[in-house]
Amino acid sequence: QELSFGQYSLVYNAFSFTFATMAAATLFLWFGRSQVGHAYKTALTISGLVCAIAAYHYFRIFESWQSAYDIKNGVVVASGYAFNDAYRYVDWLLTVPLLLIELILVMRLSAEETVSKATKLGAAAALMIVLGYPGEIATDIPTRILWGTLSAIPFVYIMWQLFAGLGASINSQPESVRELVKKARLLTFASWGFYPIVYMIPYTSLSGSNVIVGVQVGYTIADVIAKAGVGILIYMIATRKSQVEY
Amino acid sequence: QELSFGQYSLVYNAFSFTFATMAAATLFLWFGRSQVGHAYKTALTISGLVCAIAAYHYFRIFESWQSAYDIKNGVVVASGYAFNDAYRYVDWLLTVPLLLIELILVMRLSAEETVSKATKLGAAAALMIVLGYPGEIATDIPTRILWGTLSAIPFVYIMWQLFAGLGASINSQPESVRELVKKARLLTFASWGFYPIVYMIPYTSLSGSNVIVGVQVGYTIADVIAKAGVGILIYMIATRKSQVEY
Ligand SMILES: CC1=C(/C=C/C(C)=C/C=C/C(C)=C/C=O)C(C)(C)CCC1
Ligand SMILES: CC1=C(/C=C/C(C)=C/C=C/C(C)=C/C=O)C(C)(C)CCC1
Repeated sequence: QELSFGQYSLVYNAFSFTFATMAAATLFLWFGRSQVGHAYKTALTISGLVCAIAAYHYFRIFESWQSAYDIKNGVVVASGYAFNDAYRYVDWLLTVPLLLIELILVMRLSAEETVSKATKLGAAAALMIVLGYPGEIATDIPTRILWGTLSAIPFVYIMWQLFAGLGASINSQPESVRELVKKARLLTFASWGFYPIVYMIPYTSLSGSNVIVGVQVGYTIADVIAKAGVGILIYMIATRKSQVEY
Repeated sequence: QELSFGQYSLVYNAFSFTFATMAAATLFLWFGRSQVGHAYKTALTISGLVCAIAAYHYFRIFESWQSAYDIKNGVVVASGYAFNDAYRYVDWLLTVPLLLIELILVMRLSAEETVSKATKLGAAAALMIVLGYPGEIATDIPTRILWGTLSAIPFVYIMWQLFAGLGASINSQPESVRELVKKARLLTFASWGFYPIVYMIPYTSLSGSNVIVGVQVGYTIADVIAKAGVGILIYMIATRKSQVEY
């Protein structure tokens, strides 16, 4: 069924909201660099970058959404210009490895361990996203399921690495941030787990414009939490650890 | 009745004025970060962010207003593109929690108290705005009253918390800023109280274009005071407290 004006506006406003949130989070995190110890500046630089890259892509996604429809007197018609789903995947290709690096950096592991973990998880993340995209743009469900399942293999590997890896390092964190690190891990799990769930919306009994709205709004909420939400937690961990260590 | 050219221009220029004011306030507050003590930098970062987010939304509101009307030879006709009321509510959803956090930060409470107060008030603020929106876009008065009344419940809670909370902490502030903190509180009350009053304009005997102009100009004035005005006071409090404490 066709997109109603209310549905169109919901997605439109969600994109505008997310652009503003990501841009604001970027500046907050970068300003925060001057308030943390030397060892945590890179983590804030990268958290800010993740949000900046997302702000750029949400700006483009917003414009793509706007040009994909013609609205006159409250009636929404497809304009003939396709909405570009690729922006999201391009964004993830950049931001997911960066998010993983940011989580690793805030742990303050040894230099070697940092590089080896970042390389392995970064590669797995790229693979996950590259395998997911053909499914996202597929027009039939079996193709979507096929690529989604392949993409889930590196996904499970990453989740397992994060759980095991972060779990071990939590006990070596200063008392005052242990709770925050646990929260960062929980928020990462919850927000990352949200993406494959959104991906599966077309498998349900929902159809037509409801699927479009569900997928767009779903990924948008997940992005706000995974990027800006986790970024703020990283900032809080970094300031508290700086107070203890510097 | 129809919007006259004078009415159209008044709103148009009010939006442009507010964009410029918010952008200027943003830069003023961010430049001020280097002039205050460490503990107050975050308050100025956030005050600036509130104004930056508002500048973005006033830019969009301005453009939305422009595209909602066709003006030819001084005659204003609706263009068929709806004016997007949601920008304001999206803006508030982001800026109201931030404003509350900024007020809490400048009090310099303990870390725990800061987080707990920020969470409670932030959640109440989000609820207030989400409940207000369906009323704002409702086309009949009873629906407007219903949602407005629901929205007033978290509003009263926030006002009470601020009054009680800020009241207690005022006496623990240094002598030199006590008056300023009182002013910040007063300005917050006055400006916040202005929003529900503007919301009630359609209940009055005003109608048609007068309601549109009253609501747009009313919210705009309230925003300038609540964001830029309170921001400048926060800046003054932060510089004076820095002189005493650093
Ligand atoms: C498992 C899986 C997926 C997972 C996507 C994830 C986990 C994306 C995370 C994105 C983040 C964290 C972005 C924030 O920067 C896809 C590709 C939807 C395809 C279906 C299977
Ligand atoms: C009580 C009430 C309202 C209150 C709105 C307020 C209090 C908004 C404050 C906005 C601020 C402070 C913005 C600045 O950043 C609504 C939503 C109009 C709906 C009617 C009932």
